[in-house]
Amino acid sequence: MNVSSQRKAIASPESLQRIFTVPEDSHSTLNIIEQKLSEDLAGFLGDNIVAKETSLASIETNFKAFQIPESPQFVSDYTDSMMANLVAHSVHTSAPTFIGHMTSALPYFVLPLTKLMAGLNQNLVKIETSKAFTPLERQVLGMMHHLIYNLDERFYQSKMHCSAHSLGAFCSGGTVANMTALWAARNQLLGPEGDFKGITQEGIVAALRYYQYDDLAILTSERGHYSLSKAADLLGIGRQNIISIQTDENNKVNVDIMHQKAEKLKAQNIKVMAIVGVAGTTETGNIDPLKELSQLAQEIGCHFHVDAAWGGASLLSKKYRHLLAGIELADSVTIDAHKQMYVPMGAGMVLFKDPSFSQSITHHAEYILRKGSKDLGRQTLEGSRPGMAMLVHACLQIIGLNGYEILINNSIEKAHFFAASIKIHPDFELISEPELCILTYRYVPHKVQLTLSEAIKQNNTKKIREINTLLDSLTKFIQKHQREHGKSFVSRTRISPVKYQRKPTVVFRTVLANPLTSEDILSQILEEQVEIAKLDSVHLPKLLSLINE
Amino acid sequence: MNVSSQRKAIASPESLQRIFTVPEDSHSTLNIIEQKLSEDLAGFLGDNIVAKETSLASIETNFKAFQIPESPQFVSDYTDSMMANLVAHSVHTSAPTFIGHMTSALPYFVLPLTKLMAGLNQNLVKIETSKAFTPLERQVLGMMHHLIYNLDERFYQSKMHCSAHSLGAFCSGGTVANMTALWAARNQLLGPEGDFKGITQEGIVAALRYYQYDDLAILTSERGHYSLSKAADLLGIGRQNIISIQTDENNKVNVDIMHQKAEKLKAQNIKVMAIVGVAGTTETGNIDPLKELSQLAQEIGCHFHVDAAWGGASLLSKKYRHLLAGIELADSVTIDAHKQMYVPMGAGMVLFKDPSFSQSITHHAEYILRKGSKDLGRQTLEGSRPGMAMLVHACLQIIGLNGYEILINNSIEKAHFFAASIKIHPDFELISEPELCILTYRYVPHKVQLTLSEAIKQNNTKKIREINTLLDSLTKFIQKHQREHGKSFVSRTRISPVKYQRKPTVVFRTVLANPLTSEDILSQILEEQVEIAKLDSVHLPKLLSLINE
Repeated sequence: MNVSSQRKAIASPESLQRIFTVPEDSHSTLNIIEQKLSEDLAGFLGDNIVAKETSLASIETNFKAFQIPESPQFVSDYTDSMMANLVAHSVHTSAPTFIGHMTSALPYFVLPLTKLMAGLNQNLVKIETSKAFTPLERQVLGMMHHLIYNLDERFYQSKMHCSAHSLGAFCSGGTVANMTALWAARNQLLGPEGDFKGITQEGIVAALRYYQYDDLAILTSERGHYSLSKAADLLGIGRQNIISIQTDENNKVNVDIMHQKAEKLKAQNIKVMAIVGVAGTTETGNIDPLKELSQLAQEIGCHFHVDAAWGGASLLSKKYRHLLAGIELADSVTIDAHKQMYVPMGAGMVLFKDPSFSQSITHHAEYILRKGSKDLGRQTLEGSRPGMAMLVHACLQIIGLNGYEILINNSIEKAHFFAASIKIHPDFELISEPELCILTYRYVPHKVQLTLSEAIKQNNTKKIREINTLLDSLTKFIQKHQREHGKSFVSRTRISPVKYQRKPTVVFRTVLANPLTSEDILSQILEEQVEIAKLDSVHLPKLLSLINE
Repeated sequence: MNVSSQRKAIASPESLQRIFTVPEDSHSTLNIIEQKLSEDLAGFLGDNIVAKETSLASIETNFKAFQIPESPQFVSDYTDSMMANLVAHSVHTSAPTFIGHMTSALPYFVLPLTKLMAGLNQNLVKIETSKAFTPLERQVLGMMHHLIYNLDERFYQSKMHCSAHSLGAFCSGGTVANMTALWAARNQLLGPEGDFKGITQEGIVAALRYYQYDDLAILTSERGHYSLSKAADLLGIGRQNIISIQTDENNKVNVDIMHQKAEKLKAQNIKVMAIVGVAGTTETGNIDPLKELSQLAQEIGCHFHVDAAWGGASLLSKKYRHLLAGIELADSVTIDAHKQMYVPMGAGMVLFKDPSFSQSITHHAEYILRKGSKDLGRQTLEGSRPGMAMLVHACLQIIGLNGYEILINNSIEKAHFFAASIKIHPDFELISEPELCILTYRYVPHKVQLTLSEAIKQNNTKKIREINTLLDSLTKFIQKHQREHGKSFVSRTRISPVKYQRKPTVVFRTVLANPLTSEDILSQILEEQVEIAKLDSVHLPKLLSLINE
């Protein structure tokens, strides 16, 4: 970009005022970038998942200044340098070949709407700084509540916009949503009674003393998201009191074992404050048996929360919503709109079956959030918040149930296609079948598969372990190199398949939510992995030599 | 907008794919809005603080549907309806006459950058989905750390990008920032030792048993932000264990009283886990005596946190940073960039003096956040997060220290100007002198002022109370009507002036951070209030009759 005489930097109070009013010359770098973004969002970064592969250490050299610069910088100069140093080294999360995480392509209309949202700069904490955004957010929560609980018209007409009720809370993401649900559950369980002013006022120690429990616990699946133990830490319950229950061969929590554990805890006078069901585990996408969990929660008298941060959007599909059957029995549900609802980062929600549930976390302040007001900040963990609900609202209206039906079904069916491709490919092993659109697999040369099957039949634990250790290294090698090649990205994780005696096993993990990811792309990704495997001069030869032993 | 044949709605898998790739026809409503926004951000909503004053109940009728629509909607139709139902009824927080809350005008360049940020859709929880955004965020935290603590080059070179350290945490706002600081402080105090695995693992009850404390407490000013008691609730400490200490006539916490309270708590075996100093109270903008608080914290051996969510940005002014002297002694500091740093909503930060402080809240997960990684999500309360740090980075570079110097100084000096105008105006009473750019005042007809002074001299409590009760109603009347007129907005709150025996008194509150707010506008706002007061046919006549008694 050539240095135009029209460029503006900040040198005086007048020029400073100008940056709050006058737009940049329309030929500036920033305007050109904006235009390119509008014209071709997907093509903006090119085809690769990173525009330019560079080591983190080398990128850091561009971000090593620790002093805020004295002098203002021209907007165009700044933008130029950020295009080179930041954007070129960001991750193309919307690339059709980026199938490793839950970030996907976005519908084009959310970008100008995001700009509008930033320009309006509403603060949803209170009506005085958000006005119509408050009913809009309440409506989004109402629609999501209806999607889950499907209550009758009278319910929504009387509760959705009522100051005494809230159908849920909007927040920055699933972590805060889970925290909010568990916070409210804890406070409701240990509420005020007689002389005791409640945990909200007096804290956990006094609460347990009053209610005569020795401790609190939360029961969940071993596949539960790490935000649950973070919440237990934050809430003063302690990470070890998140009790992780074993899953079955399909990564679904074993309710019988949970039941037994609940009885043991009761005998120890440890109160189970909540059961958390997972509806779409982060690693494999599987859904816990929600009905059974709900029954158990009822039996032991505790809160039932469902973490559907990922899977909740599947309720938008008439064809597949049955996979989440039982979610309507949950007392609270987490859903992230920035995952399968195609909204940009920062749009989490927690929905409450009982609209008075959040009263246990209600708070007031003198200058805002007065009692009886409809200020949303009275019942959120966060304070000041942007109007992200607008983007969820827009997607719900513009995509509609019919649109989401297609999107969700396509994702799930693409995962089934990919699972089938992996199964028929001689050199790959499917580790977890997709239930939603997540699956895990690994590269295992055909001959190694045969040797491994043989070892399993013979119950040759030593051999199984030997092969799997080498395969772990090979999987890491392939995943790392594929990422670094920059053409495509699958993530990797460790899960404990029943098949391999629940030994932690390194696997590729793919999330197939991007509507632009084609079947061809998936086939190419497998072929690329085959090619990369050949480059492994350490583990692959060792594996092949094992076969011949 | 006329219905163009080029409009697209989602009816088939192909058209659905299209919304992820093809831009809308450039004459669409959304494009026109975007262009208007770019051309004239401030003028976009007109001069009024709400484009159209309508009751909340009436706005709610446009947001009463509780079912997600079946059919997709055209982007243009949606945008048209949102312009009428949402944007027209949003609050013009960037209007120069909107001086009631901490939301101000934004520099124009942050809007296209916000769009770029949304388009890149990075997830800062881990490097795999954010790459260069991770060093960028670390740099922003480094620069803010340097602004507060001013340590030497070697420190920043070795710590800023080091996986074992973090100079702070980025988050959605000041509430989460305060929570993060208090969470880490609590966990550090009750860390692992001997057989005890630490509060993180075992929870508060076990921790207090091990350390033999009867309870925990946090000491702060009665002007402390409500997020502190929310944090105490969340952390299991209990709201009543946030001990609010009286302030002096300048709204600064009384350190002697705090000292006495600390000794009492010690005698009760209640451990003070933190002292929180306020650097810019929400209601009056005053700054606690930070040096003295730091000394006290050292004396009693507790964490010292400074909530500078609002005032922290004043450090960017060489002229006024002395007002925050002592902040460099804090163990942790909260600063919101979306307040006086002119970044859109959603950019909070907490800075840690000791870069290993956050180890007490570090967590790991299998598929990301592996040990030794530089993933930012290892040490944040939130999980998935957007790349908001980019906007702070942009403002720091484009505005620079010199630019912020002008902005901050202007705000403070404008507040002094406004305070002077209020003082010389016969019919207004300044309640709190501005230290930063916040002040409180009320409308008190000159004759009423004289009667009130007389009553104070005579120590006529009954009369004082009688007048003040009527003035409270009058202030509410004026504030409400001014807001509803839609031309300008001051907020109102209740504070307890020493002058009025600390009886809660309703006051106008103004925040003068918008660079476009001129001295003329401030004079007009006072004149408008005088006019509105005349409309009060209930309290004003009663007040005037009191004078003649």
